[in-house]
Amino acid sequence: MIDITLLGTAALLPLPHRALSAAILSCGRHAILFDCGEGTQTAARRAHVNLMRADMIALTHYHGDHIFGLPGLLQTLDVMGRKKPLYLTGPEGLRQALSPIFALAGVMGYELKPMDLPMEGLRLAALIPGWPETARLCAFGTRHRVPSQGYVFTLDRPGRFQPERARELGVPQRLWGRLQSGETVWVGGGPVMPPQVMGPARKGIKVVFSGDTAACSALERAAEGADLLIADATYGENEQQELACQYGHMNFAQAGRLAQSARVKRLWLTHYSQMIDRPEAYLDHARSGFPEAVCGQDGMSVTLQFEEDYER
Amino acid sequence: MIDITLLGTAALLPLPHRALSAAILSCGRHAILFDCGEGTQTAARRAHVNLMRADMIALTHYHGDHIFGLPGLLQTLDVMGRKKPLYLTGPEGLRQALSPIFALAGVMGYELKPMDLPMEGLRLAALIPGWPETARLCAFGTRHRVPSQGYVFTLDRPGRFQPERARELGVPQRLWGRLQSGETVWVGGGPVMPPQVMGPARKGIKVVFSGDTAACSALERAAEGADLLIADATYGENEQQELACQYGHMNFAQAGRLAQSARVKRLWLTHYSQMIDRPEAYLDHARSGFPEAVCGQDGMSVTLQFEEDYER
Repeated sequence: MIDITLLGTAALLPLPHRALSAAILSCGRHAILFDCGEGTQTAARRAHVNLMRADMIALTHYHGDHIFGLPGLLQTLDVMGRKKPLYLTGPEGLRQALSPIFALAGVMGYELKPMDLPMEGLRLAALIPGWPETARLCAFGTRHRVPSQGYVFTLDRPGRFQPERARELGVPQRLWGRLQSGETVWVGGGPVMPPQVMGPARKGIKVVFSGDTAACSALERAAEGADLLIADATYGENEQQELACQYGHMNFAQAGRLAQSARVKRLWLTHYSQMIDRPEAYLDHARSGFPEAVCGQDGMSVTLQFEEDYER
Repeated sequence: MIDITLLGTAALLPLPHRALSAAILSCGRHAILFDCGEGTQTAARRAHVNLMRADMIALTHYHGDHIFGLPGLLQTLDVMGRKKPLYLTGPEGLRQALSPIFALAGVMGYELKPMDLPMEGLRLAALIPGWPETARLCAFGTRHRVPSQGYVFTLDRPGRFQPERARELGVPQRLWGRLQSGETVWVGGGPVMPPQVMGPARKGIKVVFSGDTAACSALERAAEGADLLIADATYGENEQQELACQYGHMNFAQAGRLAQSARVKRLWLTHYSQMIDRPEAYLDHARSGFPEAVCGQDGMSVTLQFEEDYER
């Protein structure tokens, strides 16, 4: 079960009712914070989200409206007694971008660990005990005016365990649990591997954060079939498509079309220009491509569960 | 006429209803911002205060809760098209403290000018055209855990012009204006100086910002007779006096007693610990020393005028 909460939906300038970019993905007592604009701490309090749970902050790029909340957040976590390390990741230039932020924040009572995600994505449980074994975070390059990346979070779901197959292979019942959790077991001198006793993989959960980006095939590919796409929708008007592209953003219509092409389940628009007073005024532009498009707003939250779980 | 607005009244941690430390003093189209905690931009929007008017940011010290709003504010002023220079002042270590902030903010389309205030205070009009000739900003050392200073803003008021004295000295009426604005004029080969034609100086306006400080004689002296003292009141309970002193702060009772000793006209309490949910619950402690004490709150504002102006 995954919870996603939008903390801030503003681009460039924070407004009283609209904080700068940040979103959090939580899984039990663990979480990843995506971007951290000025005011993210306060936005999290308003949304009743506990940022102490964040194991990692994943930055989409290093523009001020996405990172200026970091010095204060890092200090606050320290004040609140954090001891567990905090991982920070982002596109090219991470350590250089973090250097003045770490200088401002000063010495912390916990470890700050900048890291690059592996090309094939990071199996979170390998780094941070407590995450489900099948939770994975991948980055993909996006098209902004500076080095930038979006993120794909996936929670895979193995197939059902097939007791009759295990019995056929002579696996004693006490070893079934290990097979189910992905281990190979040894029976009568030979290995039995999980795929031998598990049905076909079932549909998992996939959430995609576009960060700031122009419409691009990398985002479309990354978003393919996502349960939720949180997408740059900086500009409202259809006529602003060229402007959006020039500045490395999307307008509502482009976000809608991309969501449709990628066959996502849900689309949340975010990162509104300060010129957009009421995002709802432009929603139809997004819905012309993707009828279920929703205007993100600060504090908006959704819980995603494995599909069969809904049906119970 | 001077307007003072509290933008944030929180210490250490920003809360949804209480932003971090910042206050602004405006005089017509000019202003000085005192401290700039994270969220100051948004707090100013909520309070309908235009930060573009700020000529100077006066920092009381360099703890994060007083300065982490700077990178965002500096960028926002640039986005809004600022061209006039922005002066920044603060206690010892100013340039070192600003260095990572400037690194984060990047290159601006206006000049950032760190400066130390002269010992005798700064006549603002000498630096920034548009301020009244008699407006002055002074700093005084305070008692915090790091180098810190408070600020005294004064707007002096000359005595009344005495036409009968000018006539006696043979000053033609066309030169009266120059005498009134402080110039010496020449009449029949000899100088006539303003003090010769002006009555005794009248009461001006004085506003004092304590910043973070333990109760100390420097603050008491600086606050003497102030029209408004905005004072550190981090702790509520009387029993926290020793703790307050140890951490370089005051509790409500100390702030009240200091205001009384300094014979100020108004006392606004601010910089509340996150442990203080309702500052009003402790107000009586401050009022036992200074009956007119008021709990500052975000957006609280007052206009101070020369005394006779009230009587009209």
